[in-house]
Amino acid sequence: MKINHDIQLSDGTLKHFLNINNLPKSYIEDIICRAEKLHGSSEITAYKGRVVASLFFEPSTRTKTTFELAAKKISADFINIDIANSSTSKGESIIDMIKTIEAMNCNMFVVRHSVPGTAHYIAESVSSNIAVINAGDGSNEHPTQAMLDMFTIKKHKGSFENLKVSIVGDILHSRVAKSLIFSLNTLGTKAINIVGPKKLIPDSYAEWKVQYFEDMDQGIENSDVIIMLRLQKERMHDALISLDSYYEEYGLNQTRMLRAKKDVIVMHPGPINRGVEIESSVADGPNSVILNQVSYGISVRMAIMSILFDNNNL
Amino acid sequence: MKINHDIQLSDGTLKHFLNINNLPKSYIEDIICRAEKLHGSSEITAYKGRVVASLFFEPSTRTKTTFELAAKKISADFINIDIANSSTSKGESIIDMIKTIEAMNCNMFVVRHSVPGTAHYIAESVSSNIAVINAGDGSNEHPTQAMLDMFTIKKHKGSFENLKVSIVGDILHSRVAKSLIFSLNTLGTKAINIVGPKKLIPDSYAEWKVQYFEDMDQGIENSDVIIMLRLQKERMHDALISLDSYYEEYGLNQTRMLRAKKDVIVMHPGPINRGVEIESSVADGPNSVILNQVSYGISVRMAIMSILFDNNNL
Amino acid sequence: MKINHDIQLSDGTLKHFLNINNLPKSYIEDIICRAEKLHGSSEITAYKGRVVASLFFEPSTRTKTTFELAAKKISADFINIDIANSSTSKGESIIDMIKTIEAMNCNMFVVRHSVPGTAHYIAESVSSNIAVINAGDGSNEHPTQAMLDMFTIKKHKGSFENLKVSIVGDILHSRVAKSLIFSLNTLGTKAINIVGPKKLIPDSYAEWKVQYFEDMDQGIENSDVIIMLRLQKERMHDALISLDSYYEEYGLNQTRMLRAKKDVIVMHPGPINRGVEIESSVADGPNSVILNQVSYGISVRMAIMSILFDNNNL
Repeated sequence: MKINHDIQLSDGTLKHFLNINNLPKSYIEDIICRAEKLHGSSEITAYKGRVVASLFFEPSTRTKTTFELAAKKISADFINIDIANSSTSKGESIIDMIKTIEAMNCNMFVVRHSVPGTAHYIAESVSSNIAVINAGDGSNEHPTQAMLDMFTIKKHKGSFENLKVSIVGDILHSRVAKSLIFSLNTLGTKAINIVGPKKLIPDSYAEWKVQYFEDMDQGIENSDVIIMLRLQKERMHDALISLDSYYEEYGLNQTRMLRAKKDVIVMHPGPINRGVEIESSVADGPNSVILNQVSYGISVRMAIMSILFDNNNL
Repeated sequence: MKINHDIQLSDGTLKHFLNINNLPKSYIEDIICRAEKLHGSSEITAYKGRVVASLFFEPSTRTKTTFELAAKKISADFINIDIANSSTSKGESIIDMIKTIEAMNCNMFVVRHSVPGTAHYIAESVSSNIAVINAGDGSNEHPTQAMLDMFTIKKHKGSFENLKVSIVGDILHSRVAKSLIFSLNTLGTKAINIVGPKKLIPDSYAEWKVQYFEDMDQGIENSDVIIMLRLQKERMHDALISLDSYYEEYGLNQTRMLRAKKDVIVMHPGPINRGVEIESSVADGPNSVILNQVSYGISVRMAIMSILFDNNNL
Repeated sequence: MKINHDIQLSDGTLKHFLNINNLPKSYIEDIICRAEKLHGSSEITAYKGRVVASLFFEPSTRTKTTFELAAKKISADFINIDIANSSTSKGESIIDMIKTIEAMNCNMFVVRHSVPGTAHYIAESVSSNIAVINAGDGSNEHPTQAMLDMFTIKKHKGSFENLKVSIVGDILHSRVAKSLIFSLNTLGTKAINIVGPKKLIPDSYAEWKVQYFEDMDQGIENSDVIIMLRLQKERMHDALISLDSYYEEYGLNQTRMLRAKKDVIVMHPGPINRGVEIESSVADGPNSVILNQVSYGISVRMAIMSILFDNNNL
């Protein structure tokens, strides 16, 4: 086995959790397996005294709060670094800031930043006894979101080999979409469709094992899973499409739902734009697992944190 | 017994804590009784693992911090949702935000919002296994403040049946005043006086069992309890009165104190405006229980949270 | 023994931790001794239930976060008072705010404020069962920083009697420098040099047992310890010196390092300005103990908090 020292320890186990791209299948399966064990468990005390520092350079409610709750559930201390009032606002470099927090005997960083690669950059700089988790790096990846999405599909569909999964929306700018496609591919999903206006599809999609549909009705035909992406309204201008036309062409409504399988599950990373990318009755309907995703997010983040603590002997 | 499903469970016990208006006397007494038991107790571990999410859409130091301390004292986790950086700032509706946090396995919401009825609106929307506490909804009610005020009066005066209580200030805009009047009435207070400039008294006061005094000396005559309200300086314009005249006519000073009973207690929800609605020597004097109120606020909030946890089997 | 009631209890032990100036040597040694015991210890449970309130009127990452981590390590609850959204923003006085938080059964305040003397002012106002720690008061003192610096020197150099310590930079505006000079003097440091542009040296330095050097090469000649101060760029205008000239004349670079002893340690309170007051290769080099200082800061703050809890029987 070739070791990728960016993310792996010398025994081949996962050191950091930075991306889904190139992440071996067994690692993804291990995380899902651990999350299943932890889901609904009572408090874990094995990680008492461990310190997790959260560094959110971009605002977040659900990702940050679920990380905080996940840390508490495994008895780790969770320290919110107040970026707006932090020393980076006094001109300190990110690395100096990281080294300083590291010197406070932190064991783990959870990082969100608008610049792609920031979590990797930090992972390269920290001491060997620190683990880094990427909580979203610009338009690159959002790997813990993808993991909770895989957990959701596993919970509701059992396995990936026979599934058709449709991802709908602004694929071009979505870090969620990228991490999703990588993980679905690794887990052997039978068919992955991407759906959206041509202008919101990256040229590079041809490299991925996906099929592109400009027409939504075709793109979700017979799907087992539909994953709607959040529309960034400010990006619609680039896409040369109005909000109304977008909803007409790509909004997931009751009529369109009939195209997919009867037991299709509808997913969304949130926050949802009702009446923009999804009809309220679908978001709140029996096929929607959108709120389950949030709940699973805690178990999946407990799993990732505890695996990294274990692997690094923290 | 008629069940009010807005706030009561089918066994008649309290589900949410949203308002004092129409709240049965026995509930108020139960809260005071529980608060007395919890006051000064060592840490309670019975609620370990419960998650309380605070949603303060308006700033607050004392209410939010006492809720946080009360939650810690009963071993519950307390999660501060950072509203300014939250997904509502990305256009998410309050209900979608609430549903998302609920999906994080929260057991209780503590809500403050400038729009009257927000806590009720949220209580109607949450799942059956969530309890909601109103920490102030616009000019409507501030029921936990009223409860700590009742606890304060109980502690210092024993019972309500023979008391004269005077509430002084801007009754019109004060949610504290409304909750106070409801709770004092329910507990059978002998006399409730409201005192303030005519322009700051609601027309509806006639419906309440209170007596209005425009003249402060008459309004606090022989009182057992004087509750001063915080003056919102920006509202004085509406009242057609200058700050100086207000203090002259309605400020509680040493001379005026002689009108009340010798053992009168002086209360204020804080923060106080010294020299605006109250003289410093009175605020800091032997009759003042203003800081006791703050301390009792922790016990009362411990009581309300623990009762709701118990009733909902959380 | 004459008791200084500002900071001492009637049995002569330390009540508050407000300044290094006039602090008896035995107190400083006791803190270092306690910090050595606590450094690297597992969690201390003796202070469970104690409540520490942090009042940072100025932003801070490292001081505030290390206080928070130190409090957690001795099992105390740590409450962040959100100053920007607090009642002082509604016009409440600091003392009323303090009295209110005190009424929430807090046992300790950690205060940073831009006005010199604020922590003292608060210490004079709180009840007898509250301890106050100064986390920086304007240009006056930063005593916990000085204590962690003394701990750092003790760890790396053993004792003070034979040491030459050079403090370089803007002595005039630096609260760190003042607390450093007081503590180094009290601990009997052989030689204390202060180095910087004349305009950034206070006239009062003659009262301290220090020697002033305008020339840096002379000022760090044969030093055992070099403490670089953070340059406030906005102050350079007053100093009639450009950033480039400053770095040329006072920046600590590899060449200058040769002037000092071979085993000199380089310290800095952080955040560092690379290429302004210190060369990157020196900041990251083998003589630098800058990140150790951060780590020691937790142990020293654990020591100070636990000593004050003990002395006050909290």
